[in-house]
Amino acid sequence: MPWEQKLMRTVRCRNSLARGTLARLLTAVSLEGGSIGEIRIIKEGLHAIVRDITIFADDRDQLDAIIAAMESNPGTTVLEVRDEVLELHQKGKIAIRSRYKIDSLATLRRVYTPGVAEVCLQIAENPSLARRYTVTSHLVAIVTDGTAILGLGDIGPLAGMPVMEGKAMLMETLVGLSGVPILLNTKDPDEIIEAVAHIAPTFAAIQLEDISAPRCFEIEKRLQEVLDIPVIHDDQHGTAVVTTAALMVAARSQGVALRDVRIGQIGLGAAGMATARMLMKYTGNPVLGADLSEEALQRFAALGGQPSTLPDIMAQADIVVATTGAAGLIKPEMVRPGQIILALSNPNPEIEPDAALAAGAAFAADGKSVNNVLGFPGILRGAIDTYVPYVSDEMYLAAAETLASLTPEGELAPNPLNKAVHEAVARAVAAKAVEQGLARAEYVPYLED
Amino acid sequence: MPWEQKLMRTVRCRNSLARGTLARLLTAVSLEGGSIGEIRIIKEGLHAIVRDITIFADDRDQLDAIIAAMESNPGTTVLEVRDEVLELHQKGKIAIRSRYKIDSLATLRRVYTPGVAEVCLQIAENPSLARRYTVTSHLVAIVTDGTAILGLGDIGPLAGMPVMEGKAMLMETLVGLSGVPILLNTKDPDEIIEAVAHIAPTFAAIQLEDISAPRCFEIEKRLQEVLDIPVIHDDQHGTAVVTTAALMVAARSQGVALRDVRIGQIGLGAAGMATARMLMKYTGNPVLGADLSEEALQRFAALGGQPSTLPDIMAQADIVVATTGAAGLIKPEMVRPGQIILALSNPNPEIEPDAALAAGAAFAADGKSVNNVLGFPGILRGAIDTYVPYVSDEMYLAAAETLASLTPEGELAPNPLNKAVHEAVARAVAAKAVEQGLARAEYVPYLED
Repeated sequence: MPWEQKLMRTVRCRNSLARGTLARLLTAVSLEGGSIGEIRIIKEGLHAIVRDITIFADDRDQLDAIIAAMESNPGTTVLEVRDEVLELHQKGKIAIRSRYKIDSLATLRRVYTPGVAEVCLQIAENPSLARRYTVTSHLVAIVTDGTAILGLGDIGPLAGMPVMEGKAMLMETLVGLSGVPILLNTKDPDEIIEAVAHIAPTFAAIQLEDISAPRCFEIEKRLQEVLDIPVIHDDQHGTAVVTTAALMVAARSQGVALRDVRIGQIGLGAAGMATARMLMKYTGNPVLGADLSEEALQRFAALGGQPSTLPDIMAQADIVVATTGAAGLIKPEMVRPGQIILALSNPNPEIEPDAALAAGAAFAADGKSVNNVLGFPGILRGAIDTYVPYVSDEMYLAAAETLASLTPEGELAPNPLNKAVHEAVARAVAAKAVEQGLARAEYVPYLED
Repeated sequence: MPWEQKLMRTVRCRNSLARGTLARLLTAVSLEGGSIGEIRIIKEGLHAIVRDITIFADDRDQLDAIIAAMESNPGTTVLEVRDEVLELHQKGKIAIRSRYKIDSLATLRRVYTPGVAEVCLQIAENPSLARRYTVTSHLVAIVTDGTAILGLGDIGPLAGMPVMEGKAMLMETLVGLSGVPILLNTKDPDEIIEAVAHIAPTFAAIQLEDISAPRCFEIEKRLQEVLDIPVIHDDQHGTAVVTTAALMVAARSQGVALRDVRIGQIGLGAAGMATARMLMKYTGNPVLGADLSEEALQRFAALGGQPSTLPDIMAQADIVVATTGAAGLIKPEMVRPGQIILALSNPNPEIEPDAALAAGAAFAADGKSVNNVLGFPGILRGAIDTYVPYVSDEMYLAAAETLASLTPEGELAPNPLNKAVHEAVARAVAAKAVEQGLARAEYVPYLED
């Protein structure tokens, strides 16, 4: 539940030792619609115990109500309300670091002038050495124009920076890549393509982020045409990979083969379109697709999809994937008994899993555990380490299959912070690149460095 | 001397304990024209001693000759020749690092979804918060098109990357800024300006690097016109600051006031033009200038300079600054007795200081200790911390005066790795910004974080 709620605070409470005080306090939070995260003990005294309790709320009014309820809980004194999220964001979450200390003139001479000149000349003679001797070997541009930040919409590139920094943190933490946010102050596809193409020599790959559909399709396609390094729009392909993996897991749990059933995709934005495309590639069968936009339906048909409607998909499909952003779009009465339903919109799904199951679905899940974090780090690492000019559909599918194969029984996806999962994805993506003859460098699995 | 030579190797030698073996070995190196850097003892045995000796050479032929001479030194066995410079460059010298570990889902929720959404919304409401909560507060673009890398010329942006990474290392090490190299695959000024302007929201400042003259003048000027963050062409202003500081020190050592003497600038490229401009600003007097390019002379005249020639400047000026890249350009017979001469071209100066002094100069120095490293870090830090829209001439001059004031007796410049020097420059630049009303944020001197 915390995943669905936007506001997070850490409340330091002193509770009397009277039995039931904490339980009553947590009840008060949940009665106001709040959720609880971690609870840490800060101090135990003779008469009281001090705890940091992380709470989640939907909006500021609810947050105020929750804190008021905590303050009036008998036996509880609220000592402090902290915004740890903002605290962590002070001065940003990433930094450029030197890989060596410059602690003497001797080192300065090696990493800067005059020593650096010879390295420059070697690269000038043989540009492929840049992959060995410069940061271009692990630098990834995380590019956004701010038009589709999370589910928040067009809030501008600067307001999207905390998300881009988060992606960079994940790249470093999970697979040792160096992600550099690049904020664009233009929304014009031509200008975006030109600007990114002009700075491309800096990078091993370009990750497009949170660029709104349908512009994202054209931008990714045209940029990839002019560049010989991978261009990945995460909201399309990253999402498609983790969604396809989740579907593989769901189908497996129900003893169903994806190739043998009808699949419907509700919502043909960046994520939905790419997911449907990947599923068609994987199954060889057309997918049913619904969207309010006529243009999206035409684009979908051009990709081999079968345009349909929400009611028809709910009536006909064995498996339904929804990525519309419209909470509660799927009514319980639409659910066909035995259906597998992934209602992936965050924070609020098209139908709550409980409601779908009560209405007869065989399997239902929301987007909480279907997290892009599972996709892009390993995909990028595998693609960069094999120096491919682009990431093929088959490489994306290899990533999805790896994620599905590593998902524990009873889960829909692996733990996103498990580095072994990301390394496995990287290896699978790289192996596929080698198999397809796309690799332009010998593949050496990365080690943390 | 090592500063003048491009190639650097570390040679591991086993020397017999016979007295004089090391001295003979070093003599052999210098007879071939090589220079010696550090000498470290690796192992002392009963019969021999193993040392790592760092040697410098001008080119590969000379390097081979030096190593051959070392190998044939009686009592010496060369065990290994290592290229420590290349070793340090493996995979580049910088990386993006997370400022916090993502070691739990709880942290993930704070630095990524869902916690990040509130930070995004706050910035969307009040964009000035981006300076507080994102990496834009300390990210500096280090932009090059590769047209004037060190003294190596137009070797392309990729071959220039090791230099850009070196700058980024120095920014982090000396003043805690995050420098991001941005390599441009275009040399067209319009395209460069457009590309950099489009990615500018990402950064706190733009540092232009190693872009050839005269394009650099137009690019810096026009880019600064369209951006409201500092745009600094280091090869102009960084060099002008450290050169002016060195001149202040040289004049001080001779009991001369810069405002009372004739100054001549030989070479009106990026560095020379900016230095002459700064000296005119500082002294209020015109500077004599010489260059082979008619266009450069016209540009110089437009800035208030007095076009002249090499012989005339040598005959008339009390102080001569040379930044031509032409080794040996100034002949001893041109030197006027009592002249102060800074022959700054690297690796080989326009006249060797010894030769200038022998010819009657009162003071002579080359470019070894006049290092840009002394300028840009503190200038950037002071400008960024005061959130100025551009760096004024007066701010640059404040940096120069600070450097001059911190130069120890008998030196031409302070130690470039002394962080206190950079902090002093930052404070002086910031104080000037506040005094001039250019600061758009309250100045809080930075602390290392």
